[in-house]
Amino acid sequence: MALNPQYEDIGKGFVQQYYALFDNPVQRANVINFYSTTDSFMTFEGLQIQGAPKIMEKLSSLTFQKITRVITAVDSQPMFDGGVLINVLGRLQTDEDQPHAYIQTFVLKPVGASFFVQHDIFRLSLHDV
Amino acid sequence: MALNPQYEDIGKGFVQQYYALFDNPVQRANVINFYSTTDSFMTFEGLQIQGAPKIMEKLSSLTFQKITRVITAVDSQPMFDGGVLINVLGRLQTDEDQPHAYIQTFVLKPVGASFFVQHDIFRLSLHDV
Repeated sequence: MALNPQYEDIGKGFVQQYYALFDNPVQRANVINFYSTTDSFMTFEGLQIQGAPKIMEKLSSLTFQKITRVITAVDSQPMFDGGVLINVLGRLQTDEDQPHAYIQTFVLKPVGASFFVQHDIFRLSLHDV
Repeated sequence: MALNPQYEDIGKGFVQQYYALFDNPVQRANVINFYSTTDSFMTFEGLQIQGAPKIMEKLSSLTFQKITRVITAVDSQPMFDGGVLINVLGRLQTDEDQPHAYIQTFVLKPVGASFFVQHDIFRLSLHDV
């Protein structure tokens, strides 16, 4: 129950590591190792899912091959259980689609000397009027 | 240490309540009651501050009078300590400025039958190349 003074480095390091896997079609399936079988929540464009198997199913259904991603800002905060709250603002382009701004929020939960993703919320910044 | 099944209503209700105060210049100072004197973190456009007095100082320094706000999406998740993680995607226009997309993330921490804002991250969706 202590604030981790390294929260800033942990946030930036995680984001780099996560997207390096996610953005590589050959490696993408490995992001599943960041999630817990039961205790991970994902909200993907409003769709709520829980647990690594269902999260993997969702990520496997994404059909694009190429992602071009630009990270605009990574804001991290230390949490009182030793975890880290991370907010990512960026832009991404999949295959030949239009580039879109997006936001992704992660809550990293400590387990021993490591972390898993307990919460993950993803939204493209699309604003219909 | 239980998931709150009302997380969706709590998230939506909080967002409505918070912005109703924030967006009213006469009421804005009252949002401070959502924060803890010591245990609230805010990251406002990259500026990190802690505790209700400093948060109030920051919010008091915002000089706009009129805010027009459109909420695009509110995504909430239940947390394992009974709290709620809330992600807001919206657009806002202050006074006569251009409208901008923004993201705001809140972590509500339970205290008795109520909640306080333990984490708050705000970013305008501005992407300089």
